[in-house]
Amino acid sequence: MKNFFVSKSRRLRSTPYTSRIEKQGVTAYTSYNHMLLPAGFENSLEDSYYHLKKYVQVWDVAAQRQVEITGRDSAKLVQLMTCRDLTESKDGRCYYCPIIDDQGGLINDPIVLRHNEKKWWLSIADSDVILFAKGLAIGYDFDVKITEPKVDIMAVQGPKSFALMEKIFGKTITELKFFGFDYFDFRGIKHLIARSGWSKQRGYEIYVENTESGLELYDYLFKTGKDFNVKPGCPNLIERIESALLSYGNDFDKNDNPLECGLEKYTNLESDVDFLGKQNLLKIKSQGIKKKLMGVFIDANEINVFKSIDIKNRDNKKIGELRSGVYSPHFQKVIGIAMMVKPFWDVSQFIKIQINGNFFAGKVCKLPFI
Amino acid sequence: MKNFFVSKSRRLRSTPYTSRIEKQGVTAYTSYNHMLLPAGFENSLEDSYYHLKKYVQVWDVAAQRQVEITGRDSAKLVQLMTCRDLTESKDGRCYYCPIIDDQGGLINDPIVLRHNEKKWWLSIADSDVILFAKGLAIGYDFDVKITEPKVDIMAVQGPKSFALMEKIFGKTITELKFFGFDYFDFRGIKHLIARSGWSKQRGYEIYVENTESGLELYDYLFKTGKDFNVKPGCPNLIERIESALLSYGNDFDKNDNPLECGLEKYTNLESDVDFLGKQNLLKIKSQGIKKKLMGVFIDANEINVFKSIDIKNRDNKKIGELRSGVYSPHFQKVIGIAMMVKPFWDVSQFIKIQINGNFFAGKVCKLPFI
Repeated sequence: MKNFFVSKSRRLRSTPYTSRIEKQGVTAYTSYNHMLLPAGFENSLEDSYYHLKKYVQVWDVAAQRQVEITGRDSAKLVQLMTCRDLTESKDGRCYYCPIIDDQGGLINDPIVLRHNEKKWWLSIADSDVILFAKGLAIGYDFDVKITEPKVDIMAVQGPKSFALMEKIFGKTITELKFFGFDYFDFRGIKHLIARSGWSKQRGYEIYVENTESGLELYDYLFKTGKDFNVKPGCPNLIERIESALLSYGNDFDKNDNPLECGLEKYTNLESDVDFLGKQNLLKIKSQGIKKKLMGVFIDANEINVFKSIDIKNRDNKKIGELRSGVYSPHFQKVIGIAMMVKPFWDVSQFIKIQINGNFFAGKVCKLPFI
Repeated sequence: MKNFFVSKSRRLRSTPYTSRIEKQGVTAYTSYNHMLLPAGFENSLEDSYYHLKKYVQVWDVAAQRQVEITGRDSAKLVQLMTCRDLTESKDGRCYYCPIIDDQGGLINDPIVLRHNEKKWWLSIADSDVILFAKGLAIGYDFDVKITEPKVDIMAVQGPKSFALMEKIFGKTITELKFFGFDYFDFRGIKHLIARSGWSKQRGYEIYVENTESGLELYDYLFKTGKDFNVKPGCPNLIERIESALLSYGNDFDKNDNPLECGLEKYTNLESDVDFLGKQNLLKIKSQGIKKKLMGVFIDANEINVFKSIDIKNRDNKKIGELRSGVYSPHFQKVIGIAMMVKPFWDVSQFIKIQINGNFFAGKVCKLPFI
């Protein structure tokens, strides 16, 4: 597999932490919300996977930008954009919310932070949700203010994250519930910290608004973290696929709807709330979906998924497409996330797939893998 | 300068030409509209610059995606989004159109192709204009259909592009006026071709809708182009800065308005048409702008601009920021595009800038350089 360099420019924005991770051995980037997101360090993907599952890592995930929506109609606008019923939402809580258009197609899947009834942050995946929100607000003449505030998240992930964060912020931070957030003091500066993050190894996300203090904190996390074997890291492909943490743009996109992507739990069609695409999703639900996101096991020991790869059955009929995949050292085979066509999405459905010119067999399975 | 690899995934979409350019020696990518845009080949930036100015290159610029707007209210929606008066626009013509929000901030600067009164393509720079258009259309309840059609542009750029294109499409293609477009036949398949492209060395952009035919054409351009010393290429940093072809996200962004960016020509505030941000721009115009995009010469022989670099005067006061820059072999010094603060934007204003720890002197100049 040939590698290619990333061409840097102001358009692919650096983060406050970029110069630090470049000293710490970052080797690869992806771009995410017009920003650099680290995608690999000098240690291997597998080493980083084992390390993440046992110790603690600090990630530069500033590319997870915030769309701030404030003002009188802010709650109305946020609800309009998501199929998740936010009527009972509470201040100081995070909510995973699919954002859909009027057809029900997925536009993004942010974590929505409710500061209060009139201040919301959408902590977004890779698409310009701010433009969708602005377009809607202008068209509906909503009384809102929509901005991208200077917030640069660092994530502290892994089982030892609790001990590390406790050492810095005190016992109370360990009492923060999953998807709760609050403000915590570091050397006199308040930082918004949430019990969240893009791994299932548990941890925190620090929403840094005061850059200078954030950089001090970044350095201090590594200094204090030595006792816990802290390392720099980034979202890990093996860990996130095993855990089925879906990736917008990889596993699903605007041509898919939440019912096809296993997001029924966040699609409150029976509720009274008004959101875009509701009528269309009701229609789709009554007719039944025609494709479905599933897991797949493939009896291979290597794969690189750069674009959708056809999945076929014994008769060489295309029955789905692989959208993400990686070799899992845990399962000792390739695991992946695939959009399967009706009626070929049943668990144990035989599949085959071409990798580097050879066919490999596999089967459909449930998500998550672990 | 350390280089970093690009981490490929389905989210950074490949183009139909990706496998071809990877055989042809592409070395670097940037991401653009969630897609891979080639950013360098095995020959040096300078070699490619000289080649582009003398011969002909074929570029994979499929990342310049189309937002297709059709339907009864399509002209109204397109006009609402741009400060350029499109009242007199004609079918079969391209128009450079700043897209702005209700505050007058720049969202994109596409080439707008008017197919007819009810069908428009916005050939976009790097931001999700489709989400802005959808939000507006939903909010205003416009009768439009908004899609991203499967259109993958290849550009044929350089002075020999005319001879090459004539050999393939016949004499009539050389009669196409600048920013005109029409359909031309290649082996029985019609391709939309425009006299346009992101260089001032002249050429064409082929809007490929039939991928299979487009790939045949791609190969044929190289086969036939041998006589004209054709090479694969990509937008060239030296050429585009010398020509002052502005780059959205690099030279200007949502925090800038068209009046600050030298786009007065495309900002028809005196017209009768209704567009977003008009009142705000009128106010800004009456008060006078506070910053302005200008050229700068710097007496240095090397620079890498990955983020804004402070520009100072003799008193070490910040008077602007450099947003793009490159060593120009033509001027034998660094040239750049900078946002200068009032009143320091006059031509010949002394500036200094820090590169790799050392200060270099320079001066403000007009755009374009050539």
